[in-house]
Amino acid sequence: VWFMRQAGRSLPEYRAKRAAADVLEAVRDPELACELTLQPVRRYGVDGAIVFSDIVAPLAAIGLGVRVVPGRGPVLDAPFRTRADLARLRPIEPAVDMPWLGTAIRAVAEELASSDVAVIGFAGGPFTLASYLVEGGPSRDHVHTKTLMRTEPELFDELLGRLAALALASLRAQVEAGASVVQLFDSWVGALHPADYERHVLPHVRAVFDGLAGLGVPRIHFGVATGELLGLMAEAGADVVGVDWRVPLDVARHRVRRYVADRPLALQGNLDPSVCLAPFEVVEREALDVLRRGGGRGHVFNLGHGVLPETDPDTLKRLVALVRERSPAILAACASERAHPPEPEAR
Amino acid sequence: VWFMRQAGRSLPEYRAKRAAADVLEAVRDPELACELTLQPVRRYGVDGAIVFSDIVAPLAAIGLGVRVVPGRGPVLDAPFRTRADLARLRPIEPAVDMPWLGTAIRAVAEELASSDVAVIGFAGGPFTLASYLVEGGPSRDHVHTKTLMRTEPELFDELLGRLAALALASLRAQVEAGASVVQLFDSWVGALHPADYERHVLPHVRAVFDGLAGLGVPRIHFGVATGELLGLMAEAGADVVGVDWRVPLDVARHRVRRYVADRPLALQGNLDPSVCLAPFEVVEREALDVLRRGGGRGHVFNLGHGVLPETDPDTLKRLVALVRERSPAILAACASERAHPPEPEAR
Repeated sequence: VWFMRQAGRSLPEYRAKRAAADVLEAVRDPELACELTLQPVRRYGVDGAIVFSDIVAPLAAIGLGVRVVPGRGPVLDAPFRTRADLARLRPIEPAVDMPWLGTAIRAVAEELASSDVAVIGFAGGPFTLASYLVEGGPSRDHVHTKTLMRTEPELFDELLGRLAALALASLRAQVEAGASVVQLFDSWVGALHPADYERHVLPHVRAVFDGLAGLGVPRIHFGVATGELLGLMAEAGADVVGVDWRVPLDVARHRVRRYVADRPLALQGNLDPSVCLAPFEVVEREALDVLRRGGGRGHVFNLGHGVLPETDPDTLKRLVALVRERSPAILAACASERAHPPEPEAR
Repeated sequence: VWFMRQAGRSLPEYRAKRAAADVLEAVRDPELACELTLQPVRRYGVDGAIVFSDIVAPLAAIGLGVRVVPGRGPVLDAPFRTRADLARLRPIEPAVDMPWLGTAIRAVAEELASSDVAVIGFAGGPFTLASYLVEGGPSRDHVHTKTLMRTEPELFDELLGRLAALALASLRAQVEAGASVVQLFDSWVGALHPADYERHVLPHVRAVFDGLAGLGVPRIHFGVATGELLGLMAEAGADVVGVDWRVPLDVARHRVRRYVADRPLALQGNLDPSVCLAPFEVVEREALDVLRRGGGRGHVFNLGHGVLPETDPDTLKRLVALVRERSPAILAACASERAHPPEPEAR
């Protein structure tokens, strides 16, 4: 059990520490990044420490003008629109361009060396980074990005290839520094029709996951509104597919199994983050539903998207305790159900 | 074939006519509303004329302070947060509170009397209207709305009951004035987990559709990101389920059939609106894919969401012609495939 965006906005000790610094400044301070990474481990007792960083940090590191505007998101100084812009996307050398990331991860790994807590490295997925580059900032419809994809498929392919290479280089460096799990956040890829994902994005995601094969770290792949993409995301090589709160995990399991049946595949998720703003009896009821649908084995408990800033940290703390306390019984019940499967439901 | 948001933003003749007026002012001018409704019929040759109005128009009509802010959406003067706010949601009497809507529809129906063009009335779905009321405006996460749903389910139930009654009264009045099809736009309901939709929203949608039964008009139900809700939306009583661009129509057909197998059910959609910004050969390729997946029979061709403002009207005109020209052959091919079904695919 861990939470996307656990390191951050909803923690008072985070706000106290980060008060002065801009996000992209904070990630470049390894001591601060290490502290912010460890805060939720101390407070919540989660099983994973996701390194405090930002998916656009590698873009800033290779010299692209990008700011993270509070309440809005990443904003580019100059959007990416033509072939000439490719020149701005040079290959990244993590040790030179963002040494602070490795330093922070080494510090986190050292702090957690005697524990079972996983160190989770991450990178932005190629479609999501492309959308920020092409739109110039957050977007509802991703219109410029999709139009580039359809009207200049070769340029789009080259763009995604470079962004995938950036993600791969960053993730490899994070693993070398001590990350024991990696997650590729292609947050906005759910805006695509499955045929578009398969044609234009999947090959690049596969290149990232293939490039990580053999490093011995589980590879998680996550995006929002990806109900129709889950199988393809698994097919791209993920070991764990993150599911947003819209798709019940039992439905998701069924859907990915039609694509990948020949190797172990876990699911991650998927409590609606807004549930955590309700009284704890509601949180408990909904979390248990997620655990049961998750089926015990091969399930990483998480939210279906990031922690909302309004969340009370005590709720997340109680939620972690609940998941720990109730998982063994649910695991046993699910194992017994697998041994004696019930009649299939009418639908 | 028709297009959601066909009456509007992307038409120069619309911008010319509406230049001066605020949207909620324009909908209250029946002559203007009639003209704006007919513009896309003339220009595109679509099979349906959706009346020019706004889903929040009935809220304004019963005295709620609501403005439609260009580029942002509906904004409430005072958000709905407590039981006391229910008093602001009095029942609507369409003939008294919004006579202009009936007048506009009668004028449209008269203009189209000698044609085969359907007159499409519409209303906002209960969850979507509730979200605007509770959030006070457009929202990405619908946090206040979902929290109200979970912490005060009885109040939420009463709120949705009143909004469903508002939608039903408005739709009945539109049918009486001459609408021959109705669409319930529950645009943001896809933010809910299916269990939440089934428990908190479906009963109210069913009340709307039940209240329209016997009027002899097809009832369309549409929302965005509703991949996991399509079956429940059909079960709620829709005759036509609108599908956003994320779910291939053949997948959608399979999914709804597991819920409703005992009566005819059509699908509407679902070309990605951003496809219409690409060169026409891309539009043609993608539109034919939609037609083929739609399976010919029981398919209303539409976009998967509203027309984007940047869309070239000529593209939509050519798209309508394409759908007309190619449908008979696709219908014939699909009928022949049904007679000689191919081997089921591996996935």
